[in-house]
Amino acid sequence: MTELFVRTLRDDPADAEVPSHRWLVRAGYIRRVAPGIYSWLPLGLRVLHKIEAIVREEMDAMGAQEVRFPALLPREPYEQTNRWTEYGPNLFRLQDRKRADLLLGPTHEEMFTLMVKDLYSSYKDLPLALYQIQTKYRDEARPRAGLLRGREFVMKDSYSFDLDDAGLEASYQRHRVTYQRIFDRLGLEYVIVSATSGAMGGSASEEFLALADIGEDTFVRSPGGYAANVEAVRRPLAEKQDAAGVGPAHREDTPDSPTIESLVALSNARFPRDDRPWTAADTLKNVIVMLSHPDGSRTPLAIGLPGDREVDMKRLEAAVEPAEVQPFGDAEFEAYPQLVKGYIGPAALGLGEDGEGVAYLTDPAVVEGTRWITGANEPGRHVYDLVCGRDFTSDGVLDVAEIRDGDPAPDGSGPLTLARGIEMGHIFQLGRKYADALGLKVLDPNGKLVTVTMGSYGIGCSRAVAAVAENTCDEKGLVWPRNVAPYDVHLLATGKDAAVFAFAEELSARLDAAGVAVLLDDRKASPGVKFNDAELLGMPTAVVVGRGLADGVVEVRERASGEKVEVAADDVFEHLLEVLHPAG
Amino acid sequence: MTELFVRTLRDDPADAEVPSHRWLVRAGYIRRVAPGIYSWLPLGLRVLHKIEAIVREEMDAMGAQEVRFPALLPREPYEQTNRWTEYGPNLFRLQDRKRADLLLGPTHEEMFTLMVKDLYSSYKDLPLALYQIQTKYRDEARPRAGLLRGREFVMKDSYSFDLDDAGLEASYQRHRVTYQRIFDRLGLEYVIVSATSGAMGGSASEEFLALADIGEDTFVRSPGGYAANVEAVRRPLAEKQDAAGVGPAHREDTPDSPTIESLVALSNARFPRDDRPWTAADTLKNVIVMLSHPDGSRTPLAIGLPGDREVDMKRLEAAVEPAEVQPFGDAEFEAYPQLVKGYIGPAALGLGEDGEGVAYLTDPAVVEGTRWITGANEPGRHVYDLVCGRDFTSDGVLDVAEIRDGDPAPDGSGPLTLARGIEMGHIFQLGRKYADALGLKVLDPNGKLVTVTMGSYGIGCSRAVAAVAENTCDEKGLVWPRNVAPYDVHLLATGKDAAVFAFAEELSARLDAAGVAVLLDDRKASPGVKFNDAELLGMPTAVVVGRGLADGVVEVRERASGEKVEVAADDVFEHLLEVLHPAG
Repeated sequence: MTELFVRTLRDDPADAEVPSHRWLVRAGYIRRVAPGIYSWLPLGLRVLHKIEAIVREEMDAMGAQEVRFPALLPREPYEQTNRWTEYGPNLFRLQDRKRADLLLGPTHEEMFTLMVKDLYSSYKDLPLALYQIQTKYRDEARPRAGLLRGREFVMKDSYSFDLDDAGLEASYQRHRVTYQRIFDRLGLEYVIVSATSGAMGGSASEEFLALADIGEDTFVRSPGGYAANVEAVRRPLAEKQDAAGVGPAHREDTPDSPTIESLVALSNARFPRDDRPWTAADTLKNVIVMLSHPDGSRTPLAIGLPGDREVDMKRLEAAVEPAEVQPFGDAEFEAYPQLVKGYIGPAALGLGEDGEGVAYLTDPAVVEGTRWITGANEPGRHVYDLVCGRDFTSDGVLDVAEIRDGDPAPDGSGPLTLARGIEMGHIFQLGRKYADALGLKVLDPNGKLVTVTMGSYGIGCSRAVAAVAENTCDEKGLVWPRNVAPYDVHLLATGKDAAVFAFAEELSARLDAAGVAVLLDDRKASPGVKFNDAELLGMPTAVVVGRGLADGVVEVRERASGEKVEVAADDVFEHLLEVLHPAG
Repeated sequence: MTELFVRTLRDDPADAEVPSHRWLVRAGYIRRVAPGIYSWLPLGLRVLHKIEAIVREEMDAMGAQEVRFPALLPREPYEQTNRWTEYGPNLFRLQDRKRADLLLGPTHEEMFTLMVKDLYSSYKDLPLALYQIQTKYRDEARPRAGLLRGREFVMKDSYSFDLDDAGLEASYQRHRVTYQRIFDRLGLEYVIVSATSGAMGGSASEEFLALADIGEDTFVRSPGGYAANVEAVRRPLAEKQDAAGVGPAHREDTPDSPTIESLVALSNARFPRDDRPWTAADTLKNVIVMLSHPDGSRTPLAIGLPGDREVDMKRLEAAVEPAEVQPFGDAEFEAYPQLVKGYIGPAALGLGEDGEGVAYLTDPAVVEGTRWITGANEPGRHVYDLVCGRDFTSDGVLDVAEIRDGDPAPDGSGPLTLARGIEMGHIFQLGRKYADALGLKVLDPNGKLVTVTMGSYGIGCSRAVAAVAENTCDEKGLVWPRNVAPYDVHLLATGKDAAVFAFAEELSARLDAAGVAVLLDDRKASPGVKFNDAELLGMPTAVVVGRGLADGVVEVRERASGEKVEVAADDVFEHLLEVLHPAG
């Protein structure tokens, strides 16, 4: 500790939003350089290296081969797949001294595809799995939470190449098993959930989420085993209703009812139903946003959903990718005078098939025969008994309403529970999108050229440092699992007794020789400072050599459990070897 | 070999300028993505990883601590040291989505300095040595020779931090010894030469050059032990002459003498000297260039040197850094009408003190009392007996004439020999330039704030892959030293005999279990193809299992020496262990 390049901080960094970020900065593992851009100090880099080593071992063990692509890439391949445009402002673009367009690689689908095309030509060469552990760049709109959402980050990305769908499925499953091994070794609590495939294209896709209250990803689980990222939940269409008995739609004045709640109250007071009171679920809320497309164009989108649900912005963003969602402001309302703010209604009222270019998509609950109270596109007025299919239609289904605890699982496996997690890994079946765009074909056994099908698999290595920290830390600091701890043992020499320091140094040397990584605190500092720092830094096992040494004992502390045991000084070396490599 | 992601090429790549580049591409180690930007295939990456591991081990052994900075960096720190501007077009600059200026780090002096300032405050914390192994970016005007001069490359850079000059000298020497260990382990032939410090600032500086005819760096050596990069050679000033007997300068018509040679011939014919014939060394050649400064301004510079020497452009470029040298073209001659192309002459003729803003610097041979034939700034005329100090002066000394074999060493240690090399490492004493600019001070033992003094030390890791290849390859392909070879043994199973393949596979498995990295060629290919590939790929030892196996023998080949020995099949495992880990 007298030589290690580290300083612990007493205060939280001003920008720390989550515990892992706070502790990693305070314990001297990382330092911020710019928004979403961090430097690694020695302790942090040791954790990152350990995680990379675990990933590398398991990828090698599954037969994947390591390569490395540049981070600085030419525009052309990304032009061919349209991602130069589709990536929008998330892509760091630059020009070299000859004005050639370059980018900093956010993912490397194009490069892997072209590399395999360059080298391989026959079905005999497949299956193939390649990976790299490399620095990637994404100009996030909202970098946050330290390493959890950075703009420069380390990823393991891999790609599988197969002749047919069965091969892809097998490659996908091999990766899935490997990912389970990796996350098990990292000591993480995680779940595997169905996912959308994002801007990557492709079909089958799952995410590995580390459980964390501060996670950016919300997922659902059912007792019957359904598990999905909320973005990937697809609620089934509601059953059609028979609206034969519903009278014609009628417009009514609905003064002083700006909210769903007040509208429901007014409706029950002035226009009561026969069968039951109106609820929020009987109102059709129409939310309007602007979509900004990668080519720079903007189009309005209206979303109709029951008034008891909000639009989940993350589900909406995922659903409209690569377009971005922007607010529909006063300027937009001026440009679309048929839309009356607060009183937007569906077809024949300004939206949908008759809606002069405003696309109208509705929730799965909005099906033929359902009966709604909705805006009349006139200030202070609503329409009652507006029946879907009879009085209005939509341009399609868009399932972006918030998912709630207790909602039924789409597969009928019971009520859903919501939880949050950090996306640690993502595996998906890309299919032939990139191989098609870039012409990756091989000869099949019959001598016919066929397009290769690909899978794409990622693990955020730098994010994993923060995810493990987040998953395991407590109110005193970091708590590293043994597999990723920067040092195995934190050895504290306390007091001023020369014999204590001599013993600690000898023990440190013995452990070192036995392959145990020891962090020796030999500073001239009070025991309290050393104890606090040891808890903050989070090595799994600490050994305190202090006054007890005169009586032949030292103390061994487990960071995770807080357990403290006194061990005979003569036995502590063997004791530690046992703790670190438990028999069996 | 049936599974390894590699394909050997029969033809040289079109852009291959040097052997290492040709072989690394043909053997499937690297692939070009854009000018100066390469991807690593599995074999190449294994070599890079081995080199990085050697560098890491030796840096750790000397007590340096590993950190890692981002490649994507904010502008501000580079603004504070003026390098944002000084780096000129070599710096990759970009903006993020918020229009903040960013750069891709070419070197990290600023970041290391700020990090130490952030953490440390006392002399007790020093000395300190930090390093990183990281990807760097430089927008080279002329990327060339594959990995030798790239735009994205991997470097180990380290920095030392000391309280005083003696500490810096000690840190510098520790690095020097460590670098010798590293380059010895890489199996490189190298020399250590004095160097200029380039755009980094600072004083004492040495380069480690791998000997290579195709190297970009020219260096000189003397029998007495002098060794310097040509850019760093400083020739001593010539001795002053007594020009008392030289008559006044006189202008003469010198028709048809556009070259130094023809001028000398004409001078001997029409204006002979009494004592000896005129030689080229009696003429004063005035070379004029434009300097382009980092701030965008341009100024002319005239260089006067004896007519028997050329200006060495690399020495000139190094001398005027960070300005860049540009040609003085017709447009420039129009702007400076006092300069007559081909007949430029010194002061009172348009240059130097009287030269209306054209700086005039002269060679160390041009000293007081020396007598010259030079241009008269009139077409077809020259001046004779123009005496330095009497008839003209210069604005200073500029030693940028080419160095030639046989020139005396500046330290009197004998005649110089010229040779070429690849810059593998650079160590130099930065001093306080960055600490001053960024305010890195610590309290000394007396409680006084003192500015820290720094050293800067670099090794090109990706360049080392090419340098080792260049240093060792032959006309058949790559020849890796054992320490950096991607595999220890290349095991070739030839023919179609199942027993051969079975033996080879068993041997491969045994070697593998013994920690020997084996590349097994189990392809269905002719022995000739396999032999050629083995020579191209360049593993240090090859084992050929073929027809001889029936008689109980296999062949072991050494790639470097070409030596082939027959070994009993039963003994080959032990034989190989002995070859790979020779006793002692």
